[in-house]
Amino acid sequence: MAPQLDSYFKQVDDLSDHFIERLRKAVAIPSVSAEDDRRPEVIRMGKFLASELKALGADVELRELGKQPHKEHLDLPPVVVARYGSDKSKRTILVYGHYDVQPALKDDGWATEPFDLTVDDKGRMYGRGSTDDKGPVLGWLNAIEAHQKAGIDFPVNLLMCFEGMEEYGSEGLDDFINEEAKKYFKDADAVCISDNYWLGTEKPCLTYGLRGCNYYSLEISGPGQDLHSGVFGGTAHEPMTDLMRVMSTLVAPDGKILIDGINELVAPMTDDEKSLYGDIAFTMDNLYESLGSTSGIYDNKEQTLMARWRYPSLSLHGVEGAFSAPGAKTVIPAKVIGKFSIRIVPDMEIEDVNKLVFAHVDKAFAALGSKNTCKCTLQHAGKWWVASPKHWNFTAAGKAVEHVWGVKPDLTREGGSIPVTLTFEQATGKNVLLLPMGSSTDAAHSINEKLDKRNYIEGIKLLGTYLHYVAEEPMKEE
Amino acid sequence: MAPQLDSYFKQVDDLSDHFIERLRKAVAIPSVSAEDDRRPEVIRMGKFLASELKALGADVELRELGKQPHKEHLDLPPVVVARYGSDKSKRTILVYGHYDVQPALKDDGWATEPFDLTVDDKGRMYGRGSTDDKGPVLGWLNAIEAHQKAGIDFPVNLLMCFEGMEEYGSEGLDDFINEEAKKYFKDADAVCISDNYWLGTEKPCLTYGLRGCNYYSLEISGPGQDLHSGVFGGTAHEPMTDLMRVMSTLVAPDGKILIDGINELVAPMTDDEKSLYGDIAFTMDNLYESLGSTSGIYDNKEQTLMARWRYPSLSLHGVEGAFSAPGAKTVIPAKVIGKFSIRIVPDMEIEDVNKLVFAHVDKAFAALGSKNTCKCTLQHAGKWWVASPKHWNFTAAGKAVEHVWGVKPDLTREGGSIPVTLTFEQATGKNVLLLPMGSSTDAAHSINEKLDKRNYIEGIKLLGTYLHYVAEEPMKEE
Repeated sequence: MAPQLDSYFKQVDDLSDHFIERLRKAVAIPSVSAEDDRRPEVIRMGKFLASELKALGADVELRELGKQPHKEHLDLPPVVVARYGSDKSKRTILVYGHYDVQPALKDDGWATEPFDLTVDDKGRMYGRGSTDDKGPVLGWLNAIEAHQKAGIDFPVNLLMCFEGMEEYGSEGLDDFINEEAKKYFKDADAVCISDNYWLGTEKPCLTYGLRGCNYYSLEISGPGQDLHSGVFGGTAHEPMTDLMRVMSTLVAPDGKILIDGINELVAPMTDDEKSLYGDIAFTMDNLYESLGSTSGIYDNKEQTLMARWRYPSLSLHGVEGAFSAPGAKTVIPAKVIGKFSIRIVPDMEIEDVNKLVFAHVDKAFAALGSKNTCKCTLQHAGKWWVASPKHWNFTAAGKAVEHVWGVKPDLTREGGSIPVTLTFEQATGKNVLLLPMGSSTDAAHSINEKLDKRNYIEGIKLLGTYLHYVAEEPMKEE
Repeated sequence: MAPQLDSYFKQVDDLSDHFIERLRKAVAIPSVSAEDDRRPEVIRMGKFLASELKALGADVELRELGKQPHKEHLDLPPVVVARYGSDKSKRTILVYGHYDVQPALKDDGWATEPFDLTVDDKGRMYGRGSTDDKGPVLGWLNAIEAHQKAGIDFPVNLLMCFEGMEEYGSEGLDDFINEEAKKYFKDADAVCISDNYWLGTEKPCLTYGLRGCNYYSLEISGPGQDLHSGVFGGTAHEPMTDLMRVMSTLVAPDGKILIDGINELVAPMTDDEKSLYGDIAFTMDNLYESLGSTSGIYDNKEQTLMARWRYPSLSLHGVEGAFSAPGAKTVIPAKVIGKFSIRIVPDMEIEDVNKLVFAHVDKAFAALGSKNTCKCTLQHAGKWWVASPKHWNFTAAGKAVEHVWGVKPDLTREGGSIPVTLTFEQATGKNVLLLPMGSSTDAAHSINEKLDKRNYIEGIKLLGTYLHYVAEEPMKEE
């Protein structure tokens, strides 16, 4: 296999400017799924992808998902599904990615125009969607093209599923995957998703676990309308006072969740698991660099990684309905909605967590003796996911990493959730591998999102190499 | 005096449709001082006022205040100053009002177009600025016009000062008043401001006291940029967790301020003062109606009025920098700024309050053991004001109320601050009277702001009648 890969690698290097151009074209389409008036741009991005895939000889379909729930004036962007190759003697690998991006405005603090890919002298390619997830999505296309130009047989049949609503809850996608699992996706032998990040900046990883997320709204209301604090301050129960009180009972400054019973739901740490953390290529400096500060809770990597991967966390995200602009406004908000979420881990069941949260909030609010009204609701929930890293899908990916990067990858979990991972696993019954391209400093979802040129180009090599190894890996633990 | 007033009253009644039209024209100009792109509308409103005053024969000047501090591309709207009459044998009364308004969008929940004065079948005139403060400002103009049409000699020389930045901190006005106190305003014998509200809906009042207001920003920061709660939740000190903790230590759900030493600064209640509250025309139903709920802290009017007028209060207004939109966002905000203010009363000095607040916040934050950074700053401060209600300015106003409304007015204080009151008192050295036109249900600063037709028309009569009585009232306690 090595000679084949050598000529593949050479092609990727030779085509690198062309691949960066392709990413530049993709970044230039502001496919922000959360902004209604940019929906045509999301659709345009889907069509761009489809057109690139067709030019590479893939069979492509744009699959419509209908109207957007609660926004019936908007068409959901299509899912771009494609098949490249249909050789019965080859394995079939299903890959997923998304072509929509987070919102971005220059005024948010970007150093460059967010939709104009800007490469600096260190090879950092800044642009919204560069790493999340246009770079990785194009990685699959680029791997096909480099095989073609190198004259190498493509090692697998590739099924592709690229959606346009990932940054807005993947509306409609679960139903689509469940529907197509035994149709369009029926030949899939394994699944690979490239939509996450290395743990640090130097060592690649394979990811086999994700935390889930239960997201809550905590609404406290009283007055019929917003009040003037001069006129009413001191005479009425203020919803903000109650909300701050209740929210401050949920979590301690050191991250400990204060909801009775929550921590008891967490699977106990085994000695076996504990021993894994020491070897992971991660340092406190990696944390500090990605935090942009040294305000970490723990002073060692083991506890930090455990806190991120295998323990739950609770974050207070904000308050809707209160004064949120710069400056001063002497308002007593009539109705405020606190937002918080809990990252859940094995063995926390969504429903069990809900019950404990609601009971805690009820108790904390009752203790205030307020005449306001309190209502806590679940906004959305996503289960955690843990796969077997000993599956041949992972073994193949591990060999590919070693081939391209010269190191064994870390086997990692992630603190975030990628709900589609679990959907693919449950719908297809196949092993799902998360194979990241970008690094921990890429700032997905933040200002100045970037993908390093090295990660992009070597990442293209890695995706292709993975397909070679996965084509040949003996089946075990399937 | 009575026959003269009768013909004045008849003219006001006869001209009532005309006066409502004048208010409609004023409301139609969206003079929102807080919105940069509406600055031309604020200026247009100033010119409209000047033009109406000129047509009534007043000497009018538009006095420029220069550029807006921190927004040098914006001209401050002019102060409209005017003099009507200069008869040395008459008293001179200086009146103040403002022609700018709070922001208003139909989408905020208005039942009608906010800048289209809409009169319902109960005579409620809905529109932004109807009661705050365009109705009262036009009240002075209407009083002049009704005198002219009734052929009655105007009883005083009227000096007018109408500003266009009241809803945005009266930028530039203090300097202007101090500058003109011994110039344009030098003849003033007393000051009257109509920019507040009755305590309830049935009985007029004269207002002789206001609370001050210290407004604070409480900034907590840590990470270099906003973080993803999946990736970082549980590993870093979160500014929102700390902020909610600190803010929840400031005030109890029952309104009690929890900052050490604050309550000790408050002037003790005397038996004399205590006896005043029982007679005030105010009921708990008045409170509940204006609250739009029954979530009052106290169950009796005395404690409620004391809490509003003569005790301090602390309100938590909101959080800047956190997630504030509808929906769900799994962000860990990197820097959050809590906003809160304290309404201050005699004998609380601004600086003493600051010291106690900063000490409290420092202590509360230190107790968290967080690695984040906390900074508390004063955004703005305004002193409380208490005048002598036995001054002839008040006596005259009391007689006018009795003449027009047939009842003795309540002598009230207010929970809010009207900083210009204190400025006029200190700059001119004259007694300042607050003579409200609107009622407690007018919803100034809220959606569906209105002025009742009855309050407007009888209010015009009251302003004119006040000028007759104040012209003749024997001087005492000056």
